[in-house]
Amino acid sequence: MKKIKIGLIGLGRIGKMHLQNLANLRDLFEVTAICDPYSAELVELAKQFNISYTTKDYRDLLKHPDVEAVAIASATNTHAEIIMAAARAKKNIMCEKPIDTDVARIKEVLKVVADSHVKLQVGFNRRFDHNFHTIQKAVASGKLGEPQIIKISSRDPEPPSYDYIKVSGGLFNDMMIHDLDLIRFLSQSEVTEVYAKGAVLVDPEIGKLGDIDTAIVTLKFANGALGVIDNSRKAVYGYDQRAEVFGSKGQAFSENDKLSNVEIDLEDGGHLDKIPYFFIERYQQAYVAEFKEFYNCIVTDHQPLVTGLDGLRAVQLALACHQSLIAKSPVQLEY
Amino acid sequence: MKKIKIGLIGLGRIGKMHLQNLANLRDLFEVTAICDPYSAELVELAKQFNISYTTKDYRDLLKHPDVEAVAIASATNTHAEIIMAAARAKKNIMCEKPIDTDVARIKEVLKVVADSHVKLQVGFNRRFDHNFHTIQKAVASGKLGEPQIIKISSRDPEPPSYDYIKVSGGLFNDMMIHDLDLIRFLSQSEVTEVYAKGAVLVDPEIGKLGDIDTAIVTLKFANGALGVIDNSRKAVYGYDQRAEVFGSKGQAFSENDKLSNVEIDLEDGGHLDKIPYFFIERYQQAYVAEFKEFYNCIVTDHQPLVTGLDGLRAVQLALACHQSLIAKSPVQLEY
Amino acid sequence: MKKIKIGLIGLGRIGKMHLQNLANLRDLFEVTAICDPYSAELVELAKQFNISYTTKDYRDLLKHPDVEAVAIASATNTHAEIIMAAARAKKNIMCEKPIDTDVARIKEVLKVVADSHVKLQVGFNRRFDHNFHTIQKAVASGKLGEPQIIKISSRDPEPPSYDYIKVSGGLFNDMMIHDLDLIRFLSQSEVTEVYAKGAVLVDPEIGKLGDIDTAIVTLKFANGALGVIDNSRKAVYGYDQRAEVFGSKGQAFSENDKLSNVEIDLEDGGHLDKIPYFFIERYQQAYVAEFKEFYNCIVTDHQPLVTGLDGLRAVQLALACHQSLIAKSPVQLEY
Amino acid sequence: MKKIKIGLIGLGRIGKMHLQNLANLRDLFEVTAICDPYSAELVELAKQFNISYTTKDYRDLLKHPDVEAVAIASATNTHAEIIMAAARAKKNIMCEKPIDTDVARIKEVLKVVADSHVKLQVGFNRRFDHNFHTIQKAVASGKLGEPQIIKISSRDPEPPSYDYIKVSGGLFNDMMIHDLDLIRFLSQSEVTEVYAKGAVLVDPEIGKLGDIDTAIVTLKFANGALGVIDNSRKAVYGYDQRAEVFGSKGQAFSENDKLSNVEIDLEDGGHLDKIPYFFIERYQQAYVAEFKEFYNCIVTDHQPLVTGLDGLRAVQLALACHQSLIAKSPVQLEY
Repeated sequence: MKKIKIGLIGLGRIGKMHLQNLANLRDLFEVTAICDPYSAELVELAKQFNISYTTKDYRDLLKHPDVEAVAIASATNTHAEIIMAAARAKKNIMCEKPIDTDVARIKEVLKVVADSHVKLQVGFNRRFDHNFHTIQKAVASGKLGEPQIIKISSRDPEPPSYDYIKVSGGLFNDMMIHDLDLIRFLSQSEVTEVYAKGAVLVDPEIGKLGDIDTAIVTLKFANGALGVIDNSRKAVYGYDQRAEVFGSKGQAFSENDKLSNVEIDLEDGGHLDKIPYFFIERYQQAYVAEFKEFYNCIVTDHQPLVTGLDGLRAVQLALACHQSLIAKSPVQLEY
Repeated sequence: MKKIKIGLIGLGRIGKMHLQNLANLRDLFEVTAICDPYSAELVELAKQFNISYTTKDYRDLLKHPDVEAVAIASATNTHAEIIMAAARAKKNIMCEKPIDTDVARIKEVLKVVADSHVKLQVGFNRRFDHNFHTIQKAVASGKLGEPQIIKISSRDPEPPSYDYIKVSGGLFNDMMIHDLDLIRFLSQSEVTEVYAKGAVLVDPEIGKLGDIDTAIVTLKFANGALGVIDNSRKAVYGYDQRAEVFGSKGQAFSENDKLSNVEIDLEDGGHLDKIPYFFIERYQQAYVAEFKEFYNCIVTDHQPLVTGLDGLRAVQLALACHQSLIAKSPVQLEY
Repeated sequence: MKKIKIGLIGLGRIGKMHLQNLANLRDLFEVTAICDPYSAELVELAKQFNISYTTKDYRDLLKHPDVEAVAIASATNTHAEIIMAAARAKKNIMCEKPIDTDVARIKEVLKVVADSHVKLQVGFNRRFDHNFHTIQKAVASGKLGEPQIIKISSRDPEPPSYDYIKVSGGLFNDMMIHDLDLIRFLSQSEVTEVYAKGAVLVDPEIGKLGDIDTAIVTLKFANGALGVIDNSRKAVYGYDQRAEVFGSKGQAFSENDKLSNVEIDLEDGGHLDKIPYFFIERYQQAYVAEFKEFYNCIVTDHQPLVTGLDGLRAVQLALACHQSLIAKSPVQLEY
Repeated sequence: MKKIKIGLIGLGRIGKMHLQNLANLRDLFEVTAICDPYSAELVELAKQFNISYTTKDYRDLLKHPDVEAVAIASATNTHAEIIMAAARAKKNIMCEKPIDTDVARIKEVLKVVADSHVKLQVGFNRRFDHNFHTIQKAVASGKLGEPQIIKISSRDPEPPSYDYIKVSGGLFNDMMIHDLDLIRFLSQSEVTEVYAKGAVLVDPEIGKLGDIDTAIVTLKFANGALGVIDNSRKAVYGYDQRAEVFGSKGQAFSENDKLSNVEIDLEDGGHLDKIPYFFIERYQQAYVAEFKEFYNCIVTDHQPLVTGLDGLRAVQLALACHQSLIAKSPVQLEY
């Protein structure tokens, strides 16, 4: 089995997790180069992971002869530029979401990718989660019949910092975007209308910064199905991640994973374990699986499970939700 | 413990179930009179349940000296008239929902009831369900903190007859009305806005009759919370009845009851039992509990768990949903 | 549908529960006579349940022309005598367990019953429980293949009174006897060997009275399967009642019923509702179902689901367990 | 954080899994040497994992200056010799179970280890499982009160090869030994008596080879508690691994992990996912956790969670079970 020589760009929290996962997938990948313009750990990480090449400039990495593919986990506002450069350098690309926050810019990126005939996989990791993937397989198999109602609950254990909220583009853009992608994946259909309700219930400061912390979005799909996503920035019991597809022949729904499958029965009733704290713990398996898929789509030359178009649609949907929230009315989508 | 002498008006399917339940609650009630203008079983039922008085005219029943309270399960369009007559006759009243389909008429009824100083309990049985009641207690205890997101899934195992759909007033009025009441019960707050999406996904004939068979309604509450209800007229796996309250300190959610708590593990995975078929089976315990509450509110002189005002609000909400569906936009509610 | 006119003998806690259940099953039974030599409530109960005949002497009840069947819930040491008298009077019989504590005496009773050609159903209510019945159906259907391991956990919420323990015949006889019957029902085979371990872990007083409060019994069945039953007289979390059948094609196991299917997720993890307190609550449905079965076996003339032979076997097994405990070694059974 | 330089001896299936896990734990360990007298993959593995030293002779590995600790996954009959040599070479030791199959030999090994003042951790991986560890924590915290009944169900998805069964020492020695260790871990007490029942229900060939394929063992503990373990060599639904501790204040029990937490509801009832196939999949997390613990017990100088004495006790218990099976009677244990 041929290993793919991969360069990793961006070594923040997600980047370092990718580095660990890629190193563990030693059957599939060899990390040959890492790049980060700011990281003080660059040399140390190279040493720890036995990587011979480091650079602060991604353009150098793209020129490296031992880089066949790149994983991009740099700052969001650099994604578009790096993807285009990588595509032009004929590297297959795995990029963290979002491609960009500007629709026109994303379309430009996708054109470059298409013209370069490289793979671009976007990091919507939840498509690779054991629970959601199982639901999707049930839908795709026809076992559930025609999807009619799709529901997602997605709640973070705690809000991000105020600094992050100031620049994130808001809840729809930084948080619900994952669910907007997932609901397209589960429904197997495009969204034609959204109606977004938002509220500031967790922390008034978030409202003062112009954002919301609680939201419910109703969606209509091209195939006639209806959907709903609810988000909260703070679930005290942990990172709540559930989905449900109801169809003409049945439904599939996922419960939250728990740290153990132990029930403790005491005088006051039953007690269950906590759920994994946050996305790094909860989607550990999915973050590995998405790189396995990236490997597979390269070696067997098929489209990634999350394409550039999927990356575009999620951003379009997040923008439409924002627009609906402002306008206090449903928003139609055409693509 | 003093028994309450009760007369039962209306002996259709629900009326006969009430008769059975009241007879079984022999510590609390003595059914002294039954009334139905059309039932061919009236005499037979009286004999079977050892009831000495039968009549086709509810006015006779109200005059009977051994009737202290009435349970009304007659046709919807007779509720208002019978409630007012019973109130004027100083009988305490348990009446099936809805009080009426016309808001002005309901207000008239409530005024008569108030002036008569009798109890009026409306038959929103789900408030008495072991699951939903447990969720509500968790909310009321403060254990969940401030409610922020309230969700209800409510799906019938099969659509009603076309004849019923023609006269029912539509999905919001005949089906979601239960959920609209329940979500008020769980949120402990009034609804200030609804946005209703509907679709015809189960049976095109239902659409031709001017109704929908699938719906998602988003709600906003006076206390700031958001809510969502989804309905389908056909869940092939049975009568799906679930609710969830998410608050600042935690969440409570209910799974569907199943016919047994047995898991069967075979080569192809785990297998669970079915869920109870429909409302008679699913809410068996609740239909009994609502009469226990009716008894208690009379003998201890407190307000019923479901008041006439609750009956009014549910109808107002169903009408607002219908209006939102037609207008394709959110509808504000003021009371 | 013909109603069966039934007389009820014994009006202690179980007898009164039967009276209530029989009255609620008004489609199937008419309680025409009740009998208790000691009950101060006899007349009051007759009035409350509209029963015309009461007596202190069961022989009078058996002579009553309107008694076609009897339900016996009198003191254990009267069962044998009353069953034989009822059989000779050609009444079908539903009798609480055990028939007697003496094997020879039980055999005498069964002979009289056989000669009289009446039905005798013994009150092993757990066979009618929704969970255990579902497991048994899975076994009987062949879905699980050949049974290989059968397990029962059965734990009471609190020990009986010391007075009861003094006369009960010990844990195997008063408590595990239910499980010994159930394991025969689930295994579909006779027990050929038992090995009983007992301990006094709950209350040293129980030990001083010569009994145990904790036990594990290993069983071997004629079909080769192995089984195990564990009992405790005190589970602080409630009445723990579970069973499991493992076979060559799969397994079926039951979880405890809970008061509601609500999960509450707080900062410290998940919380589940309590389980029903004790047998009256837990087996409410089973106590009703056993009378439905009694009705059916009479009107369709088939053997009861729990025969007199089943009643005999359970006592034989309890005695063998006791013998194994004393001998500190396995005991073989031949019938 | 100081990394521990570790040498790995034995590169069969388990050894290769350890190699992968140790490599992934790059923060804690550096694999500096690998050894296997037979493996054809030795050089290839060294290359793949970037290990500079390989040898066919474990004595060479023990002399290597860059080996501070060893992990032993060689053939069972070599464990004792290698442990003693490693101990004398002052290496800390992680060794797969069992230390040996001969009690006297194990005691000799433990003496050498004690005299050498090195750590010896035995590979009873289940102690590190998220479920069983959670149960044990509940016991250790006192939350469950005094343990009274401890139960383990442990069933393989399919029997091992006949060749393996011929040399394995039998079900108690090759399979139940894990459960015998686990039940000591969960009970926090020594076993004083065992009674073993065995049967050949899965495959008559296994019986012809002198082994059993189904077993139930009842245990008594020094603290008075009772226990039971059931084993089957073939559960068609997968690798069934569950445990339960019942105590004076409550109980803790674990359900099987499933491949996903998805429930699919169709017309015929609910459907759950399969359970992980076998020990490599099921205990993936535990196999990693045991090396984390090995690291911690070295750097913080505390006793391992599974000591050499634990390794001895498990073998003594397996032998006692075998003896009980042959003798058809309970066997007492003294240590």
